[in-house]
Formats: sequence, C-alpha cells, structure tokens
Amino acid sequence: VHAIGLNRADLLYLAGAHYVPSTYPSRICVEACGVVDAVGEGVTNFGIGDRVTAIPCPDPDYAVGGQWAITPARFLMPWPAGVPAERACAFWMQYGTAYYPPHEYRRIGPADTVLITAASSSAGLGAIHLARLLGATVIATSRSHAKTDQLRAQGAHHVIATEVENLAERVMQITGGTGVGLVFDAVAGRFIRSYIDAMAQNAHAYIYGALGGDPSIEYPIAAVLRRGITLQPYSAIPPMADPVLLRRMKQFLSLAQQAGHLCPVVDRVFAFDQVRDAYDHMLGGTQIGKIVLHVR
Amino acid sequence: VHAIGLNRADLLYLAGAHYVPSTYPSRICVEACGVVDAVGEGVTNFGIGDRVTAIPCPDPDYAVGGQWAITPARFLMPWPAGVPAERACAFWMQYGTAYYPPHEYRRIGPADTVLITAASSSAGLGAIHLARLLGATVIATSRSHAKTDQLRAQGAHHVIATEVENLAERVMQITGGTGVGLVFDAVAGRFIRSYIDAMAQNAHAYIYGALGGDPSIEYPIAAVLRRGITLQPYSAIPPMADPVLLRRMKQFLSLAQQAGHLCPVVDRVFAFDQVRDAYDHMLGGTQIGKIVLHVR
Repeated sequence: VHAIGLNRADLLYLAGAHYVPSTYPSRICVEACGVVDAVGEGVTNFGIGDRVTAIPCPDPDYAVGGQWAITPARFLMPWPAGVPAERACAFWMQYGTAYYPPHEYRRIGPADTVLITAASSSAGLGAIHLARLLGATVIATSRSHAKTDQLRAQGAHHVIATEVENLAERVMQITGGTGVGLVFDAVAGRFIRSYIDAMAQNAHAYIYGALGGDPSIEYPIAAVLRRGITLQPYSAIPPMADPVLLRRMKQFLSLAQQAGHLCPVVDRVFAFDQVRDAYDHMLGGTQIGKIVLHVR
Repeated sequence: VHAIGLNRADLLYLAGAHYVPSTYPSRICVEACGVVDAVGEGVTNFGIGDRVTAIPCPDPDYAVGGQWAITPARFLMPWPAGVPAERACAFWMQYGTAYYPPHEYRRIGPADTVLITAASSSAGLGAIHLARLLGATVIATSRSHAKTDQLRAQGAHHVIATEVENLAERVMQITGGTGVGLVFDAVAGRFIRSYIDAMAQNAHAYIYGALGGDPSIEYPIAAVLRRGITLQPYSAIPPMADPVLLRRMKQFLSLAQQAGHLCPVVDRVFAFDQVRDAYDHMLGGTQIGKIVLHVR
C-alpha cells in the first residue's frame, strides 16, 4: 500500500454505528493504492508489480488500511500513469458514491438541477464534478460562505449558506419556482425538512451521510405526499456488491477519469503514523476534499 | 346520495393537515353511493336512474358528502345489485388504498408475509382481505388483544398486540427469522422503529396514516441500509389520479367484489344529521371497520 484515503464511514465503523456491523478485531479503511505483491489462484487480470487502486469492498475482512492489504480482484482497478498516489487512493469512494443516484437511478442530464448538501466533503465534491459532467445545473450548500469560492471553483453554479440563508427560498428563486429534481444529502436528521420545500414534483433525495449528528431520517408525511417525492437512505456499497452495477460504475468512471473529467480534490496528506491526527482533522469540519495517509 | 362513507382523511382535510391543501368553503367526504340525477355532456357510460358508487376523487370540488354530489364519471362505478347502501359506499377507499402496494407495486403472492398495522380500521381490514385474496400470510397488529378475535375472523393468520408484545420478536418467530416482505402501516412516527427489525431484506413499508398522532416518518438510517429496505409515505390518491392505474384498480377490485371475495365491514351507521357523533365515534378508536352516514 502506498497511500490510503480516509472516510467518515471509517469512524462510523469504529464506533459500531456503521450499517455494516462491526466485528473486532477488524481492519478499517476502504480506499488505497499500491503495487501488487501476490495474486490468488485464477486471478488473470492483475499480476505482480501492477500498480492498482482499491474500490471500496463491502467485506471488512478486505479493508485496506495498512502497509499491506488483501482485496478481491474485482475491487481493484489500474492505478493510471501520471496520477500521484494521494489522488489515486481518493477516487473510487467519492465518485462511486456520487455515481449511482444521478447516472443509474435517475439518469439526470442538462435539463436537471441537482442540490448537493455539505458539498465540500470529498463525496460532495465528487457529486459536483459528476453532475457537471452529466450536464446538470448544480446548487451546492455549505453551512457558511467560507467555502463558497472553492465550491464555485469546483463547478457549483450556485452556493447556498444554510446557516444564513433560507435554503428552500433560495432554491426556488434559482429554479424559477420549479425546485430541484435530485438531492444528494450528507446531513440527514431534521435538516431534511429544510430542503423538502425545495424539491420539484416527483423529485428524489438520496441521503448518504448524517453530518448533522443525528443518523436518522425525519420528515413530515404530508409535504412528501403533496410533492410525490421520495427520500431514501443511500450507500454505494450495495450496488457495488452487485457484479453488474459494479462493472458499469468502473467502466463509466474510468472512462471519465481517462478523459480528464474527474480529478479528486485532496485536502491534506498525513504520514501513516499520524492517523489519529488525520481523523481529528476530519472531525474538525474545515476540510475541502479528501484526507489521505501517505504510507510509502 | 343514499349513504356516505367516513374516513380519517376527512378530519385531516378539515384540520388543514391533509396533504391535499384545504381551501374553504369546501365540501368533504370521498365515498358515497346513490342514484344518478343528471349527467354532463359526453357522458355515455352512466345515465339518469343508474345506481352508482363514488371512487375517491383527488379534487375536493368533487367531494361527495351531502344530499347530492357531482363527481367525474370516471370516478363512478356501478352499485352492484344486492349490496346494501352502507356497504356500497364503503368499498372504494379501503380496497383502493389497500390495492396498489401489494398488487401493483410489489405483486405479492402465496410465498409472502404481510404486516398490517392498526388493522381494525377500514383500510386495515381491506388490506387483510386483499392480502388473503392474493394468497399471502397476514400478520395484523392492534394495540391490545381486545380485537384479536375479530381480526382473525376477518382473515388475519396472526395478531400481535403492540402494547403488550414485542412486535419485531413476534414477527421473527412467526416468519422463522425471515421477516415480512411488505408492511402496510397506518401508525407512522416513532412506531416505525418497532417494525424495522421485523422487515425482510429488501422489504417495503407503505405508510398511509398517522394514527400514532405524529404525522411524520422517523427511522434510523443504519438499520434501513443494513436491510436494503424502503419506507415510504403512501396515498392511493396519486395512482387513482392516473387514468391507467385508476382503470386497473377499478377492474381488479370489481371482479373480486363480483366474485364475492371483498366485502367491507361496517362498524356503525349514523343518521345524516348525526355527522358530528359519527366523527366523534371515529376518534374514540373502538371501531372495527367503516363508519357510515345514512342519507336517504
């Protein structure tokens, strides 16, 4: 392993709060890049010495946080030439998470407007990049306006600061009263109520995180029925565990990567033995993009 | 109008809490039977003197609570010979509401087990009858065991008293650890947490009422992702507003009615001028089946 990408899901797993049940002792981390030391029987697509990146694998036995890691061959992809380790290890979780709702589940395009909450996280930035690639209009949210310039630089057409602006009112202004067709939300809990009135008829919200601190879904029935909208918890792990959906994701994202459309933002690189400092930095909430551990 | 079927949705509408926005002055009630006095231009399927029953119409302008009512022809069906008025006016809301989840959305059959909460309401009983017709195993819930015998008589294979038994544990015993594939819930709010652990992998819950008093959906994200389940607010009004889904519902249910499989349970009949007493009785929570107003 040369570098490891850190995720909030690692902390949930450590706390026993991840939806994948924690069983100790256990490895952690689902993103890394490195060089193949050995291959199992029947593995033909990778060989010793190949440079590879790991796709998040649903089985904690194959977690990749360490100086070495074992993972199924279908959860590996080539580490593209010219991509530094800290970016190679930061690709698949953010873009894989951002991939399924707009491309497989809803198939958004240039006529659509997407709302991306807590947009400065790695998954939020991945969602901005992917929504832009698909041609959509992107509205990003952050708590304050401290990160507005960076979010615009990453592709957001509009940025709303949820602690100082009324989210639904601003979205309705921006969309001319139509609302957004897709929400990609990392906050959850009661924050959901703030964007329901920003959703278009029959819109979908995918809730993939609980940065608000309350790992639950809460919303009024009447508002949801009135709009015919759907709000659902989402994780990329189940579709990635499906061989067909995994293959489609790998193909689309690696083509987009090769074409230069998707490039992870790296917030900060920590040394391998600074892992606690790295997670503390994540909890501080000032990051923009991915926090990475350098291994060798 | 000869008789009117009452629904909790009428009270929500009166309180401005229904998802269909209340606009006053307004008519109320969505179920009735009677005899045609007049038809509009172009109406060919019904004529003066026809005995008809009204299907719930999404537009409050066509509510049917009164001595006369006007409603679009596609929201009428023949009042079958031999069916008394108090049953003819009680058919379409309960079976229409119960129809879409098990037959259109999920297509359940003899291999499936269905959980029906607050099962002694008219919609709950309609769901029991329909799930039995489709061949499923039915688990009904009620707060106490006071209504257990009646629920069994209506077709429930198992009855769980949620105030004295652990709902999820009992369901898991009954299903041999598999859980139920479909939940038809009228309670909502925090009650949802009590059946999440009773749901099978990839199961669906349709939440169509809020008898628990909290008209919201609340559940923990992790438990839902772990099971891949879907929990969603549900009303039959949107599919009934779709001409194709309305026609399919009318056809299936009228065939089942003619074949003698679906017969509403009438709790109590009130005189037209006792309408307040009738709704008070509904709020008392002792009913089993439909509360009806006799008009003429």
